[in-house]
Amino acid sequence: MTGLSRPAVSLRVTELLERGLVVEDSEGPSTGGRPPTRLAFNASGGVVLVASLGASRAQIAVCDLAGRELEREGLAVDVEEGPDVVLPLVMDTWAKLLGDRPISQLRGVGLGVPATVEFAAGRTESARIMASWTGVAIPPIIAERFPAPVFLDNDVNVIAIGEHRAVYAGEADDLLFIKVSTRIGSGVIAGGEILRGALGAAGEIGHIPVRDGGGVLCRCGNIDCVDSVASGTAILRDLRARGHQVETLADVVGLVRAGDAETMTVVRNAARMLGEVVASAVNLLNPAVVVLGGDVAETFQPMVSGVREVVHRRSTALSTRNLRIERSRLGPGAGIVGCAHMVLDHILSPEAVDSVS
Amino acid sequence: MTGLSRPAVSLRVTELLERGLVVEDSEGPSTGGRPPTRLAFNASGGVVLVASLGASRAQIAVCDLAGRELEREGLAVDVEEGPDVVLPLVMDTWAKLLGDRPISQLRGVGLGVPATVEFAAGRTESARIMASWTGVAIPPIIAERFPAPVFLDNDVNVIAIGEHRAVYAGEADDLLFIKVSTRIGSGVIAGGEILRGALGAAGEIGHIPVRDGGGVLCRCGNIDCVDSVASGTAILRDLRARGHQVETLADVVGLVRAGDAETMTVVRNAARMLGEVVASAVNLLNPAVVVLGGDVAETFQPMVSGVREVVHRRSTALSTRNLRIERSRLGPGAGIVGCAHMVLDHILSPEAVDSVS
Ligand SMILES: [Zn+2]
Ligand SMILES: [Zn+2]
Repeated sequence: MTGLSRPAVSLRVTELLERGLVVEDSEGPSTGGRPPTRLAFNASGGVVLVASLGASRAQIAVCDLAGRELEREGLAVDVEEGPDVVLPLVMDTWAKLLGDRPISQLRGVGLGVPATVEFAAGRTESARIMASWTGVAIPPIIAERFPAPVFLDNDVNVIAIGEHRAVYAGEADDLLFIKVSTRIGSGVIAGGEILRGALGAAGEIGHIPVRDGGGVLCRCGNIDCVDSVASGTAILRDLRARGHQVETLADVVGLVRAGDAETMTVVRNAARMLGEVVASAVNLLNPAVVVLGGDVAETFQPMVSGVREVVHRRSTALSTRNLRIERSRLGPGAGIVGCAHMVLDHILSPEAVDSVS
Repeated sequence: MTGLSRPAVSLRVTELLERGLVVEDSEGPSTGGRPPTRLAFNASGGVVLVASLGASRAQIAVCDLAGRELEREGLAVDVEEGPDVVLPLVMDTWAKLLGDRPISQLRGVGLGVPATVEFAAGRTESARIMASWTGVAIPPIIAERFPAPVFLDNDVNVIAIGEHRAVYAGEADDLLFIKVSTRIGSGVIAGGEILRGALGAAGEIGHIPVRDGGGVLCRCGNIDCVDSVASGTAILRDLRARGHQVETLADVVGLVRAGDAETMTVVRNAARMLGEVVASAVNLLNPAVVVLGGDVAETFQPMVSGVREVVHRRSTALSTRNLRIERSRLGPGAGIVGCAHMVLDHILSPEAVDSVS
């Protein structure tokens, strides 16, 4: 006989109502057919602590149960210094932002880190037990000071969650988010949920090779990975090789705005190579929308149009039929929004409600 | 307020028990922690009709609710003749195989077809309403004669479901199945479920380009798609171009067995190019296992070892850490097994139980 484990998970709406996490919402839109019970987050039923860590800056916030920011603060951090240095700074800021709110109001903590987060069994519920950042199990450290479920994911997955929940939820539940910044990474939403894969490593688009990369050695040891030929780092390197005095991406933005022909060529070439890899991902994943974010994609319009052009030429007819390729609408705030939704998704999930009952 | 629709779906185990679809199973293995209610399919609680259509042959069967074959028959068909010709043949065979069993025993029908199956909203529950094969809505035609929920998917997705449920379920819930036959296609299992994407077109690995394909024009209009350089068709073409008198893949098998050096070179070259594309898919999806099936992969051991070698060299370290790359264990029977599980997954799902109540 084949065992069936799914029926063991039961959802107790009454439990959610009793705990004040949701309220009945008679205003909910009808979806046709038999009217479902509409529930809504009880926004004031508690708070969540969130932090989105970048390489050099962290955004730290307290949100309500609708994912809205109540308090927020930016913080300079050097993520390379590791959790021993960075986590106390983040936690002190949370304590300050919480202010007079009683700790009993705390419903969960969410953290996005610019590193690969490893999941024990690849499933979300293990994140709070096994996720690690440079080999350290982060969640227990946070939970000791802030006693609540702690959820961790890599920064790109967190932003993908934010873009999906805040901009596309219900309308486009298959979404590919590509971050183009100093590096290139992606987060995949499939059927409304983050695609993790077996070890939480899914979405590693940066080390897919392009066809005419020119033989660039990537930091991973392979040749012509899209990260090594189309990232912000690669654009800076290519411009310097052509004799341009560019220090940062802001300098490149200046050249693009001034209409410098050589800069446009470099950016368009990067877009073409990124587009090639995005086209392969579109064939495999058939997303409804591709969102291009990160400072490079958000600043350079030629990048978005270049990717769009290549994908429509190279992906299959069905996979591009209704495909939208758009620039991020949330921009730099996506990480905070994503962290809040990551926590809310978990604490309102059937499994979570079961586990606290 | 953010609307919450998930709690509207409730699972009525009592409903499943009353309808005789499941039985309580006190022998179920403990998973540690609090013991879940174990349920098992009531294998004799009904039957499902399944058919796996290939380009020139169909496998047609009646299965019990544990997915085991009760009756089976092979049938020569020309799928290009379309549903008007093929479906009556399939349905007549089902009627014959059902024999004296009352139609009230019928719980569902499952069909795998060698064509892209389009889903209305991309979600599985719409399959029985909107799935189509060459533009025709198949399920209503079948349901008129066999009044039960009808589920349709493309042949590669169905085989992926079969491989997963019968060989890897619970152990490896992220699986990439690659079919290498006259064409190359794939089916993706993510978190135990088929990855469909927005329109049901996910898994279209065949039209991802390789890097050193030599400029072969693919039937899709692009250049160097893996389908055009590494499929069974491509292997035959390359051998003929080298002067070999090969009519079918069986001839190629003969040359491989005879140790013909040139044939080995052609097969290894195809494996290298397929491996390149599989490596990209492994980076994006982080599967626990890649299964290579279809007559080419099942016959040519150099193909499996060639793919393995390239993927371990080209994919990221984390994505290959525990990765297994294996030949199909089910072989040609995978389609029937997959169709049965496709139906059982649906008729025992929370949504389905809700919809009949
Ligand atoms: Zn690389
Ligand atoms: Zn093609």
